[in-house]
Amino acid sequence: MSIEEKLEAALSAVKAKSPLVHHLTNYVTVNDCANIVLAIGASPVMADDIAEVEEMVSIASALVLNIGTLNARTIESMLAAGKRAKSLGIPVILDPVGVGATILRTKTAEQIIKEVQPTVIRGNMSEIKVLAGLDVTTKGVDSTASAENAEEIAKKLASDWNCVIAITGKTDIVSDGRQVYRIDNGHPILSDVTGTGCMSTSLIGSYCGANQDYLTATVAGLVSMGLAGELAQKSLTPQEGVGTFRMRLFDNIYNLAPESLAKGSKVSCE
Amino acid sequence: MSIEEKLEAALSAVKAKSPLVHHLTNYVTVNDCANIVLAIGASPVMADDIAEVEEMVSIASALVLNIGTLNARTIESMLAAGKRAKSLGIPVILDPVGVGATILRTKTAEQIIKEVQPTVIRGNMSEIKVLAGLDVTTKGVDSTASAENAEEIAKKLASDWNCVIAITGKTDIVSDGRQVYRIDNGHPILSDVTGTGCMSTSLIGSYCGANQDYLTATVAGLVSMGLAGELAQKSLTPQEGVGTFRMRLFDNIYNLAPESLAKGSKVSCE
Amino acid sequence: MSIEEKLEAALSAVKAKSPLVHHLTNYVTVNDCANIVLAIGASPVMADDIAEVEEMVSIASALVLNIGTLNARTIESMLAAGKRAKSLGIPVILDPVGVGATILRTKTAEQIIKEVQPTVIRGNMSEIKVLAGLDVTTKGVDSTASAENAEEIAKKLASDWNCVIAITGKTDIVSDGRQVYRIDNGHPILSDVTGTGCMSTSLIGSYCGANQDYLTATVAGLVSMGLAGELAQKSLTPQEGVGTFRMRLFDNIYNLAPESLAKGSKVSCE
Repeated sequence: MSIEEKLEAALSAVKAKSPLVHHLTNYVTVNDCANIVLAIGASPVMADDIAEVEEMVSIASALVLNIGTLNARTIESMLAAGKRAKSLGIPVILDPVGVGATILRTKTAEQIIKEVQPTVIRGNMSEIKVLAGLDVTTKGVDSTASAENAEEIAKKLASDWNCVIAITGKTDIVSDGRQVYRIDNGHPILSDVTGTGCMSTSLIGSYCGANQDYLTATVAGLVSMGLAGELAQKSLTPQEGVGTFRMRLFDNIYNLAPESLAKGSKVSCE
Repeated sequence: MSIEEKLEAALSAVKAKSPLVHHLTNYVTVNDCANIVLAIGASPVMADDIAEVEEMVSIASALVLNIGTLNARTIESMLAAGKRAKSLGIPVILDPVGVGATILRTKTAEQIIKEVQPTVIRGNMSEIKVLAGLDVTTKGVDSTASAENAEEIAKKLASDWNCVIAITGKTDIVSDGRQVYRIDNGHPILSDVTGTGCMSTSLIGSYCGANQDYLTATVAGLVSMGLAGELAQKSLTPQEGVGTFRMRLFDNIYNLAPESLAKGSKVSCE
Repeated sequence: MSIEEKLEAALSAVKAKSPLVHHLTNYVTVNDCANIVLAIGASPVMADDIAEVEEMVSIASALVLNIGTLNARTIESMLAAGKRAKSLGIPVILDPVGVGATILRTKTAEQIIKEVQPTVIRGNMSEIKVLAGLDVTTKGVDSTASAENAEEIAKKLASDWNCVIAITGKTDIVSDGRQVYRIDNGHPILSDVTGTGCMSTSLIGSYCGANQDYLTATVAGLVSMGLAGELAQKSLTPQEGVGTFRMRLFDNIYNLAPESLAKGSKVSCE
């Protein structure tokens, strides 16, 4: 099967199964994450109390761990939910938001990677470089690192950690340690809206909840976001800006048909 | 007075009194709840620290308790705020989000019902069946239960607990234990946006804060949401989807006049 | 330089420097705050755990403290972040949301003012009067106080506390204890959307992060919000309401050019 055929099948599976995607995520973009999961055809649930996360994740089809506004209480819950998910064979998608900006974020991401062994890790170039132990200066939660060697880094980390690594930026790079995909969908205006990274991770979670091929699922999540961003941007008049763009992003994810996803994808494989 | 006349008067009262509606609610849809309360003409306030909730609720006209992302800290605050509200004669509206999905949610909802004795409880069919002790399998926060016997269940629970029970779904059922209303407003796209259930509860809170007839207030909240959903859906072009729909939902609540609410309502009484 | 020229330069500086604005803020409007900061050309970061706030603020250019949904945990974090910011010369902008509504809010705001000594404090008339020790009745988080003597109060508080005081309302008043600016931008519909006060504070934070003249920065933040509100309101058709208005608010902040800000400003100085 070509990657386009795989993408089409992956989205059809999401719409057919409507997988439950449990999130432990930040309070900044949580509403956007819930709405994007619904828009693609999956079902979101957010729960973070230590007394219920293991029970909640056991009825879910995927788990998203996003450390955007982590705290001592939710870190414990993330670890507990993550371990339970893995023990049940439920895929875990980690978004290491702002890792490298503070010791707490770096230590927490490292602990989750070590103890939970996520199925997919999605970050920007700065974040993934920090996880890879490479030298990088971080400015808050936005990437400042160059995209040089992105494919090599993704491939090596994926191989070392036996997971799928996704590095998002102008070109997105996805690898499972053997194959490497490059995705050229997207538009720079996506970085002018908060949460487009988090939403990409939640879309990956939605695809992973309905598809066992996590490499394709990750590519599908990123192509979906990139393509919806392109379509939303193209629709803007000069008077319109990020407010309208953001609304149309949800419209375009909602109206995205499996065949359109395949047709609009700009994916190449090395 | 006919139910249509009652609805018209209920919305006029909200706009005249602009009641303060104190919320202890989840961090997923809290912004939408605040905006929908403002849009209908009431005034929202969110506060959840145990050190201030009793003081805050004492200046409010209604209290909304929503367990969507409950945790040990906020459960204590919900109980304290709820008890204080009841002792002051302030109506308490409970939204038992996801009850049945975890033991924590079920126990917490049961504790609130027992200790606070809410004035109104609004849930989907799955959630209300769990509260009624009926057998039901739950998938996260979305309903999977059949609507069979909804009227009977609503009437019995309302009578047992001396409150108003609202079961929302394709047809909404509202009962105070004696009367039963059926509401046929709404559109399926409402369930493709997160928080439409929470927002319905917040609208009920807004109406209860300005009206002593809580049965009518509950019907008015659900008719408002359903009617705004119908109008928002009708306005969509094929290129538009949930993003635009959600924006227009707020537009339509904002522009909803008392006479339009009465005219657009689809309420029948048994 | 005229105030118009100063405003133009201030917005150019934001766009050139894209300052990182660290927020400890409420979970109701946090997404709007992040998006408005991005829309004006700055970069938001939200982090509230005591273990990381001092480290995070040390890489930021401004700190926003907003007590909208304060709790025991985040109060400690606010104090720690605030003190660190001040010790590093990073401007701190306080939004004392709902101060006066509860003892917790009043005590916390007073403690932050005493221990952190904020660079700018922005509130509505009720909130500022409470801070000034004047008699006022508060209704939740919305102002009910008269605007009488606003200029005198702002000037005195600013002088006493060696900071910039901004009182927002129909006419906004800004003073550093010597000069007093009156701003007549804005439209009443702004108060029908939650978070427009919080967003104004975040815009002030964005300007303060890129400009050393905090008086101008504060005026620039309020003019930006008011002007965007005017433009968004003017664009509405009769079918549209607060949903569309809110979206266009972000569009207009995003498209706001330095020269348009200067030209659209309605600022007078006493």
